[in-house]
Amino acid sequence: MSISITFPDGAVRQYESGVSALDIAKGISEGLARNVLAAKVNGVVVDANRTITADATLQLLTWNDDEGKKTFWHSSAHLLAEALEALYPGVKFGIGPPIDKGFYYDIDFGDQKFGAEDFDKLEAKMNELAKANSSFIRSEVSKADAISYFTEKADPYKLELINDLNDGEITFYQQGNFTDLCRGPHIPNTGFVKAIKVLNTAGAYWRGSEKNKQLTRIYAITFPKRAELDEYLLMLEEAKKRDHRKLGKELEIFTFDDDVGPGLPLWLPNGGAMIEILENFAKKTEREAGYERVKTPHIAKESMYLKSGHLPYYKESMFPPMEMDGDTYYLKAMNCPHHHKIFGALPRSYKELPLRLAEYGTCYRYEQSGELFGLMRVRSLQMNDAHIYCTEEQFEQEFRAVNDLYARYFKVFGIDKYVMRFSTHDPAKLGEKYINNPELWLKTEDMVRKVLINSNIPYVEVADEAAFYGPKIDIQVWSAIGKEFTLATNQVDFAQAERFDLYYINEKSEKERPLIIHRAPLSTHERFIGFLLEHYAGNFPTWLAPKQVAILPISDKYLDYAKDVCNFLKKCDIRAFIDERAEKAGKKIRDAEIAKIPYMLIVGEKEAGSGEVSVRRHGGEDLGAMKQEAFAEHIKKETEI
Amino acid sequence: MSISITFPDGAVRQYESGVSALDIAKGISEGLARNVLAAKVNGVVVDANRTITADATLQLLTWNDDEGKKTFWHSSAHLLAEALEALYPGVKFGIGPPIDKGFYYDIDFGDQKFGAEDFDKLEAKMNELAKANSSFIRSEVSKADAISYFTEKADPYKLELINDLNDGEITFYQQGNFTDLCRGPHIPNTGFVKAIKVLNTAGAYWRGSEKNKQLTRIYAITFPKRAELDEYLLMLEEAKKRDHRKLGKELEIFTFDDDVGPGLPLWLPNGGAMIEILENFAKKTEREAGYERVKTPHIAKESMYLKSGHLPYYKESMFPPMEMDGDTYYLKAMNCPHHHKIFGALPRSYKELPLRLAEYGTCYRYEQSGELFGLMRVRSLQMNDAHIYCTEEQFEQEFRAVNDLYARYFKVFGIDKYVMRFSTHDPAKLGEKYINNPELWLKTEDMVRKVLINSNIPYVEVADEAAFYGPKIDIQVWSAIGKEFTLATNQVDFAQAERFDLYYINEKSEKERPLIIHRAPLSTHERFIGFLLEHYAGNFPTWLAPKQVAILPISDKYLDYAKDVCNFLKKCDIRAFIDERAEKAGKKIRDAEIAKIPYMLIVGEKEAGSGEVSVRRHGGEDLGAMKQEAFAEHIKKETEI
Repeated sequence: MSISITFPDGAVRQYESGVSALDIAKGISEGLARNVLAAKVNGVVVDANRTITADATLQLLTWNDDEGKKTFWHSSAHLLAEALEALYPGVKFGIGPPIDKGFYYDIDFGDQKFGAEDFDKLEAKMNELAKANSSFIRSEVSKADAISYFTEKADPYKLELINDLNDGEITFYQQGNFTDLCRGPHIPNTGFVKAIKVLNTAGAYWRGSEKNKQLTRIYAITFPKRAELDEYLLMLEEAKKRDHRKLGKELEIFTFDDDVGPGLPLWLPNGGAMIEILENFAKKTEREAGYERVKTPHIAKESMYLKSGHLPYYKESMFPPMEMDGDTYYLKAMNCPHHHKIFGALPRSYKELPLRLAEYGTCYRYEQSGELFGLMRVRSLQMNDAHIYCTEEQFEQEFRAVNDLYARYFKVFGIDKYVMRFSTHDPAKLGEKYINNPELWLKTEDMVRKVLINSNIPYVEVADEAAFYGPKIDIQVWSAIGKEFTLATNQVDFAQAERFDLYYINEKSEKERPLIIHRAPLSTHERFIGFLLEHYAGNFPTWLAPKQVAILPISDKYLDYAKDVCNFLKKCDIRAFIDERAEKAGKKIRDAEIAKIPYMLIVGEKEAGSGEVSVRRHGGEDLGAMKQEAFAEHIKKETEI
Repeated sequence: MSISITFPDGAVRQYESGVSALDIAKGISEGLARNVLAAKVNGVVVDANRTITADATLQLLTWNDDEGKKTFWHSSAHLLAEALEALYPGVKFGIGPPIDKGFYYDIDFGDQKFGAEDFDKLEAKMNELAKANSSFIRSEVSKADAISYFTEKADPYKLELINDLNDGEITFYQQGNFTDLCRGPHIPNTGFVKAIKVLNTAGAYWRGSEKNKQLTRIYAITFPKRAELDEYLLMLEEAKKRDHRKLGKELEIFTFDDDVGPGLPLWLPNGGAMIEILENFAKKTEREAGYERVKTPHIAKESMYLKSGHLPYYKESMFPPMEMDGDTYYLKAMNCPHHHKIFGALPRSYKELPLRLAEYGTCYRYEQSGELFGLMRVRSLQMNDAHIYCTEEQFEQEFRAVNDLYARYFKVFGIDKYVMRFSTHDPAKLGEKYINNPELWLKTEDMVRKVLINSNIPYVEVADEAAFYGPKIDIQVWSAIGKEFTLATNQVDFAQAERFDLYYINEKSEKERPLIIHRAPLSTHERFIGFLLEHYAGNFPTWLAPKQVAILPISDKYLDYAKDVCNFLKKCDIRAFIDERAEKAGKKIRDAEIAKIPYMLIVGEKEAGSGEVSVRRHGGEDLGAMKQEAFAEHIKKETEI
């Protein structure tokens, strides 16, 4: 019997019933077949060697697909388990899923020991088993048989998992001598795994509950090519050097204090300077783009957040309440309600729209203390926030302008790779998860999609992940070393105007609700400066460097001249300082290098005599002697953005 | 018998015992005697006609002395009571003290009515009684006689007051037909009062308690010269026009919202722009003065404020606590503790001092809702704050630099009249009200005094009003129309460094505590912008105006040209906007005048053709047509500060 297979490009081909995705790939080319890790049949990811017995759509999944990678790493977790069982007979297995980068397996080692000193041995065994090219073999098992198998193996964890499953839905996967309870899918055989790195271990309670036993979670990563592992390890090493917590301390950007509280950074003068620089840049850029700046308190009454709907739904992410004068106050977790109040404070005409209200507002959000992480996950957020109130007709242009702003900012900061993740609604969930206005959903989603296509911005579309009040865009960026960050969101909102009774008078003198765009292209200072520290490894471009110029007098005799230079540069709005310490010039240069100051000016007798400065760039490049004015001009040119 | 009288300038003269201050004044000059309102004998203010029977120091008090004014107004309150008793027989009297500007008397009118329509009649009667030149006659009265007098008069309020007094300490004052229970002192006679204005009435509970009867409080003011009253009334009228609450609404500077909460202003775009302008000005000025900017959270743990001593002593001025993760958090009511934490976050060397940490930090203070008043008394305070950490040797120069900064700021804002109120400690209260370090008190007070004298800054010295931790200066300024504002303080602190264990390593490699200067020369945005609104009557100088230029196309045909002009001006950092409404030019000009925009540019066919703009200044001055570039240059020159 012949069946029709439809490919992603729309092409339809005929095959014999019982053909597998792998067979089909082989039919196209042996090279392709060697890269097929799994297949998506009628939208479901399955083993590449599963037979297909009816008409179907088919997508072959390789390392280039997220789902291909996940399958590869999930299979690698089985490989790790196989190796562990060979090396440590009797260990018990929890779960072993793929994660963003690699995979883990939770293991109960019983009385046996396992630590970093055993990683090499484990990797060697995994490599050996990978080379055995063992196929991953799927079998459907009855619940009774499954229980009997793991009872014999005396694995209480797997038995607990089986207990939660329905008979008829249970499958095992076997490769070599190892069999695991698993829904799959898996790669064709272990030979696909060409490079392996066991990364680290951590304690993890069984099923995440402190009441259960703590297992050993082993993290590892694998690749289909050796070179990719090497590249990944290099990135890891570089990322460690660029860790924003380490650099933030070394460069005196921020600090934490027990008396202030966790997740609440204190910005030291260098951090304060960066905040100023970023804000001035954003304010100028956004002023030119027609934004107006407002300023609002950090608190509001409960009634505000009941109106906005943040209470009770968002309550657990908000700071605890304050009781005052018989009222309940909350720290703001977002600026929108305050901005809506400003929109509503005056009668508005269509002539005033689009109205773009911007504020570097500090919001406070409760995060579990265990989830706090340097500047990346904090409790105080200084947000480059704005809300744009516009008519439906203006929406497309405004939304596009916001996306263009993102692109412009990214260019300035040398962010070459970014993707916009466009989240839409699910029509089946209107009135539940999504506000029930089907027309406006389709209309705004359509507008957003059009903007993304027309602006030529790379994006992926994800159904059923929109906000309650409208479609949204999340922006993922990659740092200079390829590390991924989620920086900000750009959202459409057609619910809040109703809740806050916001309206403008249209051309027909009727009341009409504005659409609202929420946007924060420079994210929060916390997350963005954290990102920039890692992205630039602390070697900020001169315009962004908190200290731009270190003036290094070679002895106290030239301190007066150094002060002249410093005052002159400050008058030119250049962030200069003098290293007044009684140290040798060599030591001063070394320390300025460590502090990653873009420019060092060495001043001694010659320079003082000629009104010049000897210029050295961070990293060692010698620009020679130049007049103070020429140097100021040089900096001015370099720092134009 | 002869006694020695010592005058303020140190001169000593001999007089017969029993002489009065008034006699002495007459002996000096009749003119002087006509101006003597009371006298300070051995530091105590008394009636000018009280006899002096032993050696004493003497200061004659006139209208130029605060205590002279107070005596004048207190006597005027008696005059008001005398007039009321004449007009409304049987009214009962509460208390009638002088206040900052004028005086009041609390009256129980019983069944009789009194309102604004009766002010003229009351003033006329007061004038009539003033002209009677009745002397204020003091008599000592036994408690029994006092009770019997007011029992007969059936005045329950005076009887209640007498009840609290000790026999032997009770005095009456009589002028004309009116006798009051009073400690005095008073002016010689009613004839000194030459000008009278009854201002308004308000309800006031007897002794400030809601449980008591509500009396009618009558506010009034008097002067020794008619011209002074006229001037005062003019100022009042002008102040009403300049009321920052009225102007703040008209010029769209700020608003309040019930869902946000009382005392928590929301800054509209015009207010946001002013905040930006002020901050940029302060940041530039203070950067040049060697300040570094930091940024700190708006909350901290209870432990921080226990350390600083704000808890429990300052608790009632702080916002209520938030309970989180088993800790108690507070909104910050001041920035100092956070800054101290930044000082302490890194090892500090004497080479780094003075370290000047600045922040426009927003603090939250609890004020009774009844005390909130526009921007002048609020619950959120954006403070132009900084803390200077310095050595004792550096203190004088730093403190002087701060005072110079104040003077410089005042000059920029056209504040011609200001006084620094220098508060010192009381040696008798060391260890109680004041930190027990007598040497450092004397030393720092001496340094502050020297700075004040050397800087030629007008100041008054007030004993026993220092802060717990050191001497301080409060700055009183007078607005353009002579209204007084207390804007800011400048304080020395030699306690907090100890509490926070702050130290630097001195030249001998020993730990040493820094002195700390707290300063906020531009006050808070709230109070300062409130002041500026009244000071300038909303007619801000161009550099400070939120909107500097209104571009007024005379018809839609010239909108494109208007946009060219607007974009050009924006590129020149000039805050311009277009009035796009389909209104006549005359209407647009009127509205721009009402909005107090410094410049209006009228653009029509002629201007569009020649690339010019027709310039009109706020108020009507016509500067004629000029090229766009010439106008930008004109603004640039005008706004240099």
